[in-house]
Amino acid sequence: MTKIIVDAFGGDYAPKEIIDGSIQALKEEQDLSIVLVGKEKEINDIISSYNDESLSSRIEVVDAQDIITNDDVPTEAIRHKTESSIVKAMKRLKEDDECQGFVSAGSTGAVLVGATLIAGRIQGINRPALAPFLPTVTGGQVILCDCGANIECKDINILQFAHMGTAYAKANGIENPKVGLLNNGAEEHKGTQLNRDAYALLKEDKKLNFVGNCEARDILSGDYDVVVADGFNGNIALKSCEGTANAIFALLKDGIMKGGLRAKLGYLLLKPTFKTLKKRVDYNDNGGACFLGVNKVIVKSHGASKAKSIKASILQCSGLIKADVVGKIKEGIAKE
Amino acid sequence: MTKIIVDAFGGDYAPKEIIDGSIQALKEEQDLSIVLVGKEKEINDIISSYNDESLSSRIEVVDAQDIITNDDVPTEAIRHKTESSIVKAMKRLKEDDECQGFVSAGSTGAVLVGATLIAGRIQGINRPALAPFLPTVTGGQVILCDCGANIECKDINILQFAHMGTAYAKANGIENPKVGLLNNGAEEHKGTQLNRDAYALLKEDKKLNFVGNCEARDILSGDYDVVVADGFNGNIALKSCEGTANAIFALLKDGIMKGGLRAKLGYLLLKPTFKTLKKRVDYNDNGGACFLGVNKVIVKSHGASKAKSIKASILQCSGLIKADVVGKIKEGIAKE
Repeated sequence: MTKIIVDAFGGDYAPKEIIDGSIQALKEEQDLSIVLVGKEKEINDIISSYNDESLSSRIEVVDAQDIITNDDVPTEAIRHKTESSIVKAMKRLKEDDECQGFVSAGSTGAVLVGATLIAGRIQGINRPALAPFLPTVTGGQVILCDCGANIECKDINILQFAHMGTAYAKANGIENPKVGLLNNGAEEHKGTQLNRDAYALLKEDKKLNFVGNCEARDILSGDYDVVVADGFNGNIALKSCEGTANAIFALLKDGIMKGGLRAKLGYLLLKPTFKTLKKRVDYNDNGGACFLGVNKVIVKSHGASKAKSIKASILQCSGLIKADVVGKIKEGIAKE
Repeated sequence: MTKIIVDAFGGDYAPKEIIDGSIQALKEEQDLSIVLVGKEKEINDIISSYNDESLSSRIEVVDAQDIITNDDVPTEAIRHKTESSIVKAMKRLKEDDECQGFVSAGSTGAVLVGATLIAGRIQGINRPALAPFLPTVTGGQVILCDCGANIECKDINILQFAHMGTAYAKANGIENPKVGLLNNGAEEHKGTQLNRDAYALLKEDKKLNFVGNCEARDILSGDYDVVVADGFNGNIALKSCEGTANAIFALLKDGIMKGGLRAKLGYLLLKPTFKTLKKRVDYNDNGGACFLGVNKVIVKSHGASKAKSIKASILQCSGLIKADVVGKIKEGIAKE
C-alpha cells in the first residue's frame, strides 16, 4: 500500500478539485491510500457526495482549520500557522513512516520551507531543489533543477542538484541520464565564477554523466536529461520558456482570428494537432514539480491545478515512491 | 548624409550576402553611404558585378586582409589582429566623425570588445550593453538589456542599462518607456542581493519610468518596453525564449507530419498565418541587437544573417543615428 498525504486546501480550486483529483487517483490505483488534510467538515461533505464506500475507506481525513496563502511569508507561516494544512501535513509526513509522499497545489514557498524544516533533508544534501519536467523536441522530457528553491547557490549545491536530478531521471526510467550545466555558452570557461566552479565539480564527479554546458536555447533540444542551474537562473529559464509558449499561442490565435475564413478553416482542420501540441508543452498537465532532497517524495502541483492535474501529481508521487527516488538520491551522493 | 561602416567579412555568409544587403540598403535610402571593410579585391569584384555606378559611388572600400572568427578570444583578437575587418572598422569609426555607425554579423565578443576599447564608451557609462528587441503579444516590442555583454554586474550597471534601454526605446518612438527589472517574482524583496540593490536604485531614479520587477514569463507580455538584467540572466532569458520558439515550431511541424491528410490540408490553409507568426517571433529578421553605451551606433546582426537581415540592420543603424540614440543616452545619464 502506498500512502500519500494531499493538501486539500492548497491551490486556486481547493478543496473541490483537489478532492476530485484524489478520488480519480484512488480509482486508478488500487494499492493507494490518501490522507486529506484540511477543514474536516468540508472535506467529509465532498467525499460523502461520491457515495462510494470502497473509495472512502482508503481516505483518511486530518483536520486543519488554517490555510497558508501566497501572501504569507513562507518561513513565518510555517513557524506560526501551526493549524494550517501544510504544517499539519508535514508533521504527519515526518511522524508516520507509512506516509511516503505529499502533494500540494498551495504556496510553493511554504511547501519548500515546510518540507525542509519539518519533513527534513536527506543527510548529505545541503539544499533541496525544485525540479519540473519540460518536454523536449525529440519527444522526451528534461528535468530542470533547481527552478527557484535556492536563489543564491554555491558550486556544491549545483553538484548536489545534479545528483538529485540524476536520481529523479533514473526513477523515471532513464538510464545514465545526461547532465548539462545551464550557461551562456558551450565552452568550459563560460559564465560566472559560480558556473566555472560548478563545471569543475561536475566534470570531476565520476558518478555523473556530465556532458558539459547547456545553452538556454538547447534546454528543450533533447540533448540533456537533466539541466542544473542555481535557482534564480533556473527560474528565469523556466518562466521564459513558459512565457514564450504562451506568447506564441496567443500570437497564433490572433493570426487565426485576423486571417479570415481560410485561416479559420485551417485552424479547424489542425485543431487536434494544436490540442496535442498544447498538451505536450503545458508542463502543468503532466503532474507537478518534484521537490528533491527531502526524506519524503514531495510533488508541488501548479496553483491553478484542477482535478486532472492533481490526479496526475498524485500518480506521479506514487510512481516516485515505488521507484524509490529518495533511496536513489542517497546512493548518488554516498561517497565511494 | 549618413555614413555607416559595414564589416564585409563578418558572419556565416560573408562577404557575398553582406555586400548584397549593403547594396539593398543603399537602394532603399538615398542619403546613405557605406564603408565596406574587408578583403578589397573580393569586395570590389562583387560590387562591380552589380554594374550600378550610382550605387558604387556611395560605397567606399577599406582593405582588411585578416578576419576575427568565433574561435578567437575577443580581447586577444582585438589586440593582435590589427589587420582584421573589425579592428580596422573600429579604428575608422573612432577617427572619422562622419562615420556614425557600424554593422557586423561577425564575432559578438570581438564587436563588443572592439567597440568598447577602440570606438570608446560614452562618458558616465561603465559597461556598454547588448540590447535586442523581442516581439510582444500585444504587437509591440520589448528591449532586453543586457543580453550577454556583462556576465558579472553591479547594481549601478543595471541602472545604466535602464537609462540606455530607455534612450533606445525613445529613439524607436516610444514615449516614457516602461522599465522592468528581470526577477524571479513581482515583490520588491525578491531575487538576489544584486536584484534588491538594483531595484532600490531604479526606484529612486526620477528620470526613469520604473514599473517594478518583471517575471521572466512576462517579458513578452507587452507590459514593459525595456527589461533590464545582468548579462548572464538576460542571456538565459533571451535564449530560453529563442529555444522555446524553435521547439514549438519543431513540435508543430512534427504534429502536422504525423497528422495525416487533414492536418496537412489545415497547414496549407494556415501557411500565411504561420509565415507571419514566424516572421514576428524571429527577432533576427527584424535587424540586429544594438550595443548601447559606446560613442557610435553599433548594430550586431546575427551570425547567420543573409542579405535581408544585413539590410535591416543597416537601416536600423541609420534610423538610430538619425534619432540620435547616443545623444539620448548622454541626456539620460546626465546628473540633474
